[in-house]
Amino acid sequence: MVNQELYNIGKARTVIRRLFDYGKEQRKLGNVVYDFSLGNPNLQPPKEVIDTLRELSIENPDGLHEYTLGPGLESTRQAVADNLNKRFGLELEGKYVFMTCGASPCLRASFEALKESPDDEIIMLAPYFPEYPLFIKNAGLKSVAVPCKDDLTPDFDALEKAINPHTKAVIVNSPNNPSGIVYDEATTKALVDVMERKQRELGRPLIMITDEPYRELVYGVPDHCFAKDWDNSIICYSFSKSLSLPGERIGYIAVNPKMEGADDMYWALSGAIRMLGYVCAPALFQRVIEKCLWAKPNIAQYQKNHDLLLDNLTRIGFECTHPDGAFYICIKAKDGDSEALSELAKSLGILIIPCDEFGAKGFVRIAYCVKEQTIIDSIPAFEKLYELMNK
Amino acid sequence: MVNQELYNIGKARTVIRRLFDYGKEQRKLGNVVYDFSLGNPNLQPPKEVIDTLRELSIENPDGLHEYTLGPGLESTRQAVADNLNKRFGLELEGKYVFMTCGASPCLRASFEALKESPDDEIIMLAPYFPEYPLFIKNAGLKSVAVPCKDDLTPDFDALEKAINPHTKAVIVNSPNNPSGIVYDEATTKALVDVMERKQRELGRPLIMITDEPYRELVYGVPDHCFAKDWDNSIICYSFSKSLSLPGERIGYIAVNPKMEGADDMYWALSGAIRMLGYVCAPALFQRVIEKCLWAKPNIAQYQKNHDLLLDNLTRIGFECTHPDGAFYICIKAKDGDSEALSELAKSLGILIIPCDEFGAKGFVRIAYCVKEQTIIDSIPAFEKLYELMNK
Repeated sequence: MVNQELYNIGKARTVIRRLFDYGKEQRKLGNVVYDFSLGNPNLQPPKEVIDTLRELSIENPDGLHEYTLGPGLESTRQAVADNLNKRFGLELEGKYVFMTCGASPCLRASFEALKESPDDEIIMLAPYFPEYPLFIKNAGLKSVAVPCKDDLTPDFDALEKAINPHTKAVIVNSPNNPSGIVYDEATTKALVDVMERKQRELGRPLIMITDEPYRELVYGVPDHCFAKDWDNSIICYSFSKSLSLPGERIGYIAVNPKMEGADDMYWALSGAIRMLGYVCAPALFQRVIEKCLWAKPNIAQYQKNHDLLLDNLTRIGFECTHPDGAFYICIKAKDGDSEALSELAKSLGILIIPCDEFGAKGFVRIAYCVKEQTIIDSIPAFEKLYELMNK
Repeated sequence: MVNQELYNIGKARTVIRRLFDYGKEQRKLGNVVYDFSLGNPNLQPPKEVIDTLRELSIENPDGLHEYTLGPGLESTRQAVADNLNKRFGLELEGKYVFMTCGASPCLRASFEALKESPDDEIIMLAPYFPEYPLFIKNAGLKSVAVPCKDDLTPDFDALEKAINPHTKAVIVNSPNNPSGIVYDEATTKALVDVMERKQRELGRPLIMITDEPYRELVYGVPDHCFAKDWDNSIICYSFSKSLSLPGERIGYIAVNPKMEGADDMYWALSGAIRMLGYVCAPALFQRVIEKCLWAKPNIAQYQKNHDLLLDNLTRIGFECTHPDGAFYICIKAKDGDSEALSELAKSLGILIIPCDEFGAKGFVRIAYCVKEQTIIDSIPAFEKLYELMNK
């Protein structure tokens, strides 16, 4: 009676969800768990966000909760463009910024907006978020996973081979979930070189879809917006991580005005967003983020967690990714068996996610958006884990 | 380079949007407009909503803006079920309530969750919301419009003829947009009779999808939830209208536990909602509405507008629907030319929507969720309109 594929997707609990539920149960039983399973920021939103929300709800101006236009409040859209332009030397325009319920709808809508034929392909550079292939399929296109190198850095030779006449777009996610890796200048240049060559060969725009929710969460390296590097680009952004607002579903999609056919792309995206049932992005939080675009997340705390965890994992002997951003580190499992490592960790009260589904086979993800004390307390368990893994 | 169909949908401005923009321009020019174009509640949210939002934002409890689980906070889901059960004598369960970003995603997801074959059909009882056929098509099914009677009441003989082995579901929308018509007991019974007969013939569940955002906006007749009448039903609800929160995108979908295969339906809906890019419903407003389920909209004000407008339109001579709910009245255009009537009205400063796209050919919609004074001031213009229409 129902769509079997959607039933399966609905019924399947992701590995993240399974571990999260396990953690909840264990805590109910009074057992200690070091829960590194979820990318749910533990930090409060920046003070500006809390204050703006308070002011708006106390003041309660007329029309606060009204429908906004589908793409959002004009002032918010322009403010987002202005903010990015000033910070990254871009030339975005408010009319091409569309406020959304977080980054997921941006991705899902991009895929469908690009679909001209069921043979059309979207390339995912591993490691990638496991929702990508599901969204791409649901939008009616084919997903192509380009494997990464052994250390989870991108493999642009493999990318070059994968791009073909069916390729509509390449998804780039840096800072990366799950590896925490941030593209440096040389990496970005290598990516652009490949895309330029292939775009010339194809003789038509090759789109870069940049999934940038972790853009501001970088440690010792500059934050970066890929629209600077590639004209034919679409920015997918969420304030979930940078402003610690994941439950409020506020983000945006922006078409680079330098894109060939930017106007067509914007309208196709608008149509796609509308057809997915989105009416507008939450109105109150459109107003909140408009006032808080310059607010900074508490990077210092994540940096502390990052250093503490990385130093200890390295000291213990784990092979780690070199994570300059997001709030993730991946460690390598012995013999590439990430499931076994995750299970072993679970038996020690550590909840970490096997990353095979992320296209990072043999790695396990540690999300360190947790209390510093949790990391400190977990170190002996990580020592034990290393010992048991190598027994 | 982009999906042409989505481009067309994105680029097309709905008639509502065109009139709304026209109104904005006219006001900028200092011209008087009586804007009855939008279903944007003019009333403030009930005091409970304003106070709860204030309290939460002042108190700022830990985790206020965290991700909730996909289907929402357990307490919110259970509270929604409890509230409906107490008010309507139902036996809903929290586990089958899924919090959403308003009613649109509920509808869009229902269609896709029901899709087993591209030949599957969803029946829309005219008059209906013009997004229905677009959503149904985008979800990969066929929409079938069942025409209504001349006075915009449902035509169940036509429904009976339309139901066939491809029919998966019938959408019911009462109180109705655009007519304002509310099904009375006899009408509901007639609907159920047809559906029972056809369900028996089909030998499998025939689903009723009830689009109920105007449920509480009724004048002198009881509010009603159709889950009481039909076991194989899915409730699509939004707090946009009842709590004046259209911009905040908060609503829910609920599967009737008495449905044959309720569990399958719930999981297919979950999968569909996830695949449309929804991560969770806005977390803050999940908490707000949980505390405000018993809050009442200011029905007295809408009732006043309703009476004032209906009395005057009738006195002037317009042929009107008999609207017991929502905040809409439809009036009949001369010679069935609703476009001409809407244009004529525009020339007098009255913005009203031709309803041909709603399956209500020859009618024009007046949305009276406006200031009482706007109605009072507009009466002479309506008098002039009637005179010109009949010249």
